[in-house]
Amino acid sequence: MSTNSRLDQQIAFIEYIDKLKYITRKTRLFGSGRHENDAEHSWHLAMMALVLKEHSNEQVDLLKVIKMLLIHDIVEINAGDVFLYDTTKNHDNTEEELKAAKEIFGMLPAEQANELINIWLEFEEGETAEARYAHSLDRLEPIMQNASNDGGTWAEFQVPYSTVIHKTQKIEKGSNVLWSYAKDLIDDNHSKGIIPKG
Amino acid sequence: MSTNSRLDQQIAFIEYIDKLKYITRKTRLFGSGRHENDAEHSWHLAMMALVLKEHSNEQVDLLKVIKMLLIHDIVEINAGDVFLYDTTKNHDNTEEELKAAKEIFGMLPAEQANELINIWLEFEEGETAEARYAHSLDRLEPIMQNASNDGGTWAEFQVPYSTVIHKTQKIEKGSNVLWSYAKDLIDDNHSKGIIPKG
Repeated sequence: MSTNSRLDQQIAFIEYIDKLKYITRKTRLFGSGRHENDAEHSWHLAMMALVLKEHSNEQVDLLKVIKMLLIHDIVEINAGDVFLYDTTKNHDNTEEELKAAKEIFGMLPAEQANELINIWLEFEEGETAEARYAHSLDRLEPIMQNASNDGGTWAEFQVPYSTVIHKTQKIEKGSNVLWSYAKDLIDDNHSKGIIPKG
Repeated sequence: MSTNSRLDQQIAFIEYIDKLKYITRKTRLFGSGRHENDAEHSWHLAMMALVLKEHSNEQVDLLKVIKMLLIHDIVEINAGDVFLYDTTKNHDNTEEELKAAKEIFGMLPAEQANELINIWLEFEEGETAEARYAHSLDRLEPIMQNASNDGGTWAEFQVPYSTVIHKTQKIEKGSNVLWSYAKDLIDDNHSKGIIPKG
């Protein structure tokens, strides 16, 4: 229909990533029983990046942070979602995810594919100011959701306090302010017995 | 829980806008019977802005475009969604929407509230390069979805060809390339009898 081959590639990518809307997370919407999907999650994190930028420990390039957050879960279309508190599978940067990144971003013209693969890798590696801030937000949202849902996944999967802290404390690398806020929520749920000891 | 009053305002806003995930659009996901919600739609448009930027007629500030698209439907949480082809209610920039923008963005610290209200107004007014490009994408996504769904809302609501063109041709103000692509999809659906004459 179009003779513009770059546009054809871009349109095919745009249609393909629609599948992100079907990938269901373990966490639920605020004060709700309805599970969140990855597209909703990605939108919410981008909004958080915009609104909470002043709390990043370091100066960040906001556009790069938002790009990271918009694309960070797209690999799950091919590689599947791994729950943060999964006890059998590593959450981070698997071979399957790298393969998925190359497959999905590889649908785009080469220089666009390379840009998005590199931004995704930068997020996964977590070694830049932008990646640290983006990770803080990715950890903070489900803490807020769990706190609004009588413990949410903490209660549902009986995740012990030490595990919750271990999995979420990297918020501090991106933002001391947001970690202080998140830690208060976690400690409050622990003191109420919602997050089990251990 | 926090003594940081700016953060408290920001957190309240972040929780409030979760409601965008419950606002259902008339259009459905690609090749699907499932209606799209506004959060998914906003995520998808931000991704389109990123990937299709080279097709904007004018140079644009991509961060501003993405901000516009992330927030453009948030007013619908308070004002409700108005269907593009609604025959009784104006789609654009109603008093209710301005009131909603002031209420919702007004939850944020003043300078952040002002920034987002102004970006939302700039989108609604459609008089800048960023707003024109953003509008192109907001019109293009449902055309692609309808084309993937045997006519989608065009067929479901029997929207005549002249109305479809009238409501979508502003894509051209933002992007000649995207309008050419969209027009081909519309004309193809018209020639197949999926979009009725008239």
